Amino acid sequence: MKRPLKLLVIGGVAAGTKAASKARRDDPSMEITIITEEQYISYAGCGLAYYIGGVVENRDKLFARSPETFREKHRIAVLIGHRAERINTYDRTVRVTRLADDQTIVMPYDRLLITTGASPVIPRVEGINANGVFTLHTIPDADNILHYIAERRVKSAFIIGGGYIGVETAENLLRRGISCTLCEIEGQLLPKFFDPDMGKLISEHATSQGVEILTGTTVERIERSPEGFVTAVSAGGRAVECELVICAAGVRPNVHLAKEARIVIGPTGAIRVDRRMETSMKNVYAAGDCAESVNLVSGKPCWYPLGSTANKQGRVAGANIAGGRKTFEGIVGTAIVKVFDLTAGRTGLTEQEALAAGFNAVTATVTSPGRVNYYPGGGDVTLKLVADGATGRALGAQAVGSDSVDKVIDTMAAALTGKLTVFALTNIDLAYSPPFSTPLGAVITAAGVIEEKL
Amino acid sequence: MKRPLKLLVIGGVAAGTKAASKARRDDPSMEITIITEEQYISYAGCGLAYYIGGVVENRDKLFARSPETFREKHRIAVLIGHRAERINTYDRTVRVTRLADDQTIVMPYDRLLITTGASPVIPRVEGINANGVFTLHTIPDADNILHYIAERRVKSAFIIGGGYIGVETAENLLRRGISCTLCEIEGQLLPKFFDPDMGKLISEHATSQGVEILTGTTVERIERSPEGFVTAVSAGGRAVECELVICAAGVRPNVHLAKEARIVIGPTGAIRVDRRMETSMKNVYAAGDCAESVNLVSGKPCWYPLGSTANKQGRVAGANIAGGRKTFEGIVGTAIVKVFDLTAGRTGLTEQEALAAGFNAVTATVTSPGRVNYYPGGGDVTLKLVADGATGRALGAQAVGSDSVDKVIDTMAAALTGKLTVFALTNIDLAYSPPFSTPLGAVITAAGVIEEKL
Repeated sequence: MKRPLKLLVIGGVAAGTKAASKARRDDPSMEITIITEEQYISYAGCGLAYYIGGVVENRDKLFARSPETFREKHRIAVLIGHRAERINTYDRTVRVTRLADDQTIVMPYDRLLITTGASPVIPRVEGINANGVFTLHTIPDADNILHYIAERRVKSAFIIGGGYIGVETAENLLRRGISCTLCEIEGQLLPKFFDPDMGKLISEHATSQGVEILTGTTVERIERSPEGFVTAVSAGGRAVECELVICAAGVRPNVHLAKEARIVIGPTGAIRVDRRMETSMKNVYAAGDCAESVNLVSGKPCWYPLGSTANKQGRVAGANIAGGRKTFEGIVGTAIVKVFDLTAGRTGLTEQEALAAGFNAVTATVTSPGRVNYYPGGGDVTLKLVADGATGRALGAQAVGSDSVDKVIDTMAAALTGKLTVFALTNIDLAYSPPFSTPLGAVITAAGVIEEKL
Repeated sequence: MKRPLKLLVIGGVAAGTKAASKARRDDPSMEITIITEEQYISYAGCGLAYYIGGVVENRDKLFARSPETFREKHRIAVLIGHRAERINTYDRTVRVTRLADDQTIVMPYDRLLITTGASPVIPRVEGINANGVFTLHTIPDADNILHYIAERRVKSAFIIGGGYIGVETAENLLRRGISCTLCEIEGQLLPKFFDPDMGKLISEHATSQGVEILTGTTVERIERSPEGFVTAVSAGGRAVECELVICAAGVRPNVHLAKEARIVIGPTGAIRVDRRMETSMKNVYAAGDCAESVNLVSGKPCWYPLGSTANKQGRVAGANIAGGRKTFEGIVGTAIVKVFDLTAGRTGLTEQEALAAGFNAVTATVTSPGRVNYYPGGGDVTLKLVADGATGRALGAQAVGSDSVDKVIDTMAAALTGKLTVFALTNIDLAYSPPFSTPLGAVITAAGVIEEKL
């Protein structure tokens, strides 16, 4: 009889727990242990801003499954408060510190999965350690912010970073009656996701909702009271008074352990994996926010840390760890964010990204109603479609509007996965009935405009 | 100098007006005339049921463009109340009757476009000519029904046919406080669109909303009062009292003119066209509900009369008539219908259609929430995915639910157009954020279930 394989998973949020569950389903004999230095596992990192805003009313709902569920239902051991210190790929062990008593444990593995995630980038500015400066990345982060808001009766906040966490946090703080200044070092909101013309639509809407937006602005200093509490942020040469600072200046992959173990890090700074989610080291897998991916439109390595991708990569990693043959081919760069009453979504390459990747990018921007004008309700969507001028192949889509943005983006994500051209898109057979769309809709209309340009 | 070409368009609803406009844009010199025996052109045939229900409050909004707009803005002549009687492809003329005075006109053409649409099938049952029996296909149909309802104070209606017109009409009559019996000869509602298991979900919901549904039931006779007004419908051996009967027993393509002109009719009974929308007769084009199409999933000729397809075919026909080189490759069989608080959509092949087409159909049916459980609002969607067991290629999707049905169907329509497999769909990069979806969602989940079966 074969000895059951030992799977050790470092990290317990999305990819780690998904992979462990999948491995358990596919190989009932495997001995599976998840270790995490956090106190919580399997929580909804994507919901934290909405928890801050009170949209998520019940904190318990942020937890998909408890350590007990893993133990009892899935026979997966979960060690919270355990920090992996060092991976030894020669001995196949991981040195772990139990944070409660600083005890060192050496844990053997046959298969190792690194799902160490990403961590917020902390800007190096004076005063960043003041009381009242937070990141919003974990459950304790959210708890601490809510506690601070209540205790200090916070009325105004300054958010460093206009990415999607910054934008979601602004919306949710405003929902609590806290005025917000949103400061982005680049010239537009969501600079990693949208072209400037589309970013402008987003900024205008956020401004109309009461957010003060500073773009192209660097934070110089965080001012403190004698007691050490935030009083203002100096940015772009002026001081903005505030009682709370949220650092949402992006994240970077946690690759320290992998790097020390001489596992190859890709050009994006995340862990390189093959299509089976195996790293350069045999029997060591990586998935989720610490792992690299391939952009299927450009064919280039990319790194987009998102919960949805983490789940899919985790499933593939888990299946392969259990002896399966699944592949994760890559992503197309899809993202979506609610911005007050608008939705902003993107997939594929922006015009700027397409040009940078060497395509002869041709674009069309159209604004279409989400449904026929005689059917009540509905709103508009503005779609910017990007295609390759040489072949007509669709390269990307950005949509901003109050209606059907998610539908347009998912449709285009599937179209990009299938490498459709604008010629195919002008005739694509999308669902039409008066309550749901217009006879043609934004995708077909925009594709038709590009077609005429080719 | 070349003589300007004469384009004659027979039919003026969706395909005809779209083609005429496109031809005008692409060839400013062309002489374009639309003839129609109807009194109205360019109207929203798809909105008529919602007009009956009062959802469309303003009748004027059902008209996209008036004959005057065509004349003045587009220099397109529109002859309403003119019936095309015979096409002479040798002389390149069409014999036309002006209905106002029964005068015969012979109109020459260089290019002819047949957009004669489809007409409702009238069941051959006793009493079908009673007062109070209507079809719902044109603006006058809708006007007549509304007038009859008001004048006779209609309280109950019987609808012959459980296709999408029947279902939409039932919802809209109920909205006016008129009780409805919906009678379908096949064993389920929407039998041309859904497998029986999905049709059942639709029937159950319609029943819960107060529609009496008779499936597998044939109408035997329509009973009349001595004054000739409908009093009841005998169906399945019992008499159902009612004051109004709506015939929604399907439509058939209007191909009489084409057939007489020896233009080839395809196996579906609609006019055969090539990818340029040209018929078997040179310089004679056809588009819209009278024209055949190709199902890109099965590769077989098909006929799905829908306003969205008519618009796209009209655009391609118009461009080619003006000397262009556009193609319409085909459709994937997408349709969507609102059924009270549910939406039901489909694309590709149903399980039954896939089996009939010779595929080894493998299916998965999953019910997913439209968004994460901690974010308020949203509903469920039940998705049935069909794939080819031999290759894993996705063949079709049917979705019924209160949330994101249109999104799921459009995503799958694009996936089918790109010939994606379930292996690709398990990892497809769809838009995720808590207000819009779950991290995986119905498409990925269902694809994963099928993947495990292959």
